[in-house]
Amino acid sequence: MTQTLDITDRTRLRRSHERGHFDRETINAILDAQPMCSVGYVIDMKPYVTPTLQWREGNHVYWHGSSASRALRNSRDAEVCLTVSILDGFVMARSGMHHSVNSRSVMLFGRAFKVEDPAEKHAKLARFVNGLFPGRYEGLREEHAQDLKATTLLGMEIAEGSAKIRTGPPKDEEADYELPIWAGVIPVTTTVGTPEPDPRNLPGVEMPEHIRKFRL
Amino acid sequence: MTQTLDITDRTRLRRSHERGHFDRETINAILDAQPMCSVGYVIDMKPYVTPTLQWREGNHVYWHGSSASRALRNSRDAEVCLTVSILDGFVMARSGMHHSVNSRSVMLFGRAFKVEDPAEKHAKLARFVNGLFPGRYEGLREEHAQDLKATTLLGMEIAEGSAKIRTGPPKDEEADYELPIWAGVIPVTTTVGTPEPDPRNLPGVEMPEHIRKFRL
Repeated sequence: MTQTLDITDRTRLRRSHERGHFDRETINAILDAQPMCSVGYVIDMKPYVTPTLQWREGNHVYWHGSSASRALRNSRDAEVCLTVSILDGFVMARSGMHHSVNSRSVMLFGRAFKVEDPAEKHAKLARFVNGLFPGRYEGLREEHAQDLKATTLLGMEIAEGSAKIRTGPPKDEEADYELPIWAGVIPVTTTVGTPEPDPRNLPGVEMPEHIRKFRL
Repeated sequence: MTQTLDITDRTRLRRSHERGHFDRETINAILDAQPMCSVGYVIDMKPYVTPTLQWREGNHVYWHGSSASRALRNSRDAEVCLTVSILDGFVMARSGMHHSVNSRSVMLFGRAFKVEDPAEKHAKLARFVNGLFPGRYEGLREEHAQDLKATTLLGMEIAEGSAKIRTGPPKDEEADYELPIWAGVIPVTTTVGTPEPDPRNLPGVEMPEHIRKFRL
């Protein structure tokens, strides 16, 4: 079955979002499935795209980085476009034209805000770490005040955007199904490998469950 | 071993590029390893990022899509920022601050041009398909003239940009190595699964080698 929520125009996206609920659930599921994202922003009328990690809390998405980062300084209070895309497979059709990829992607538009309050920053960073690795944050050495200062945390409301999903076999032109050409899908997945302990781990420190059981 | 080519500022990137050769090789290797990319562009002073597939020919990178796509219409002859990023692992440190990801990414800046000549478009699309799946293009049904018309092909010279690579274990503060906290790397890889033949393939059509042997 091919399901396509194909929304590539900003105006249409906004309308689609207003259709409601289903889109928000789809968007949330994709954001929660893949922390890697790309944040687009504009400096001097020119486009910049920075890969980073995002995490979601309710109807907001957050990302962070070094306070020295030009990307983060320029995204603050500015319009950004945040995208997540997950490649699920190569769709091999009977014509070049109908080759495609199975994928899930989200495109969000909004104005980034900076989280300034140290306690709130702390709580959000803990949520980020624990969201991926349950319970890890509490086992780490306590954050120094300068760690928080050196970290800029930006957020954006999930209010305007879209999801795009393609699944299933190729869709060829009807006449092309009679051609003796192999068509189908080559699935692609992200695999988590065996964790590699730091050679400098202290003797007797065991691999915690949040590492052993980590899955994306 | 941790190798970081960390270049996040456009001016520094340009200088880095001028240092030469090594960067271009690193950039090319990352572009060739992962076709998924994000193209950033500006419409009405606002940033847009579109996930798509890229391929490289020498010192140029190309991407394509429907001629009806707003993204492609607005990128033509415009400044774009094309990024590829590959997640290689989660770097688990002894403090929240030093958690990171192992990754390879490329950020390219330039002005996109449209490939108009039908023969050139045809040759480039063939190169794209055959680059991933050697010999596939010649076995497909011939492109119709309207297929080429319906496809917009954009390109950009690889002239300004940077690569960023992080590998190896966490880098903690020296004092933190005495803490009994598990640190290390959780590797992440992209895995190609077993190809799924289209249920409508004709009987007797065998899976070609370019499908069976496909690896990213």
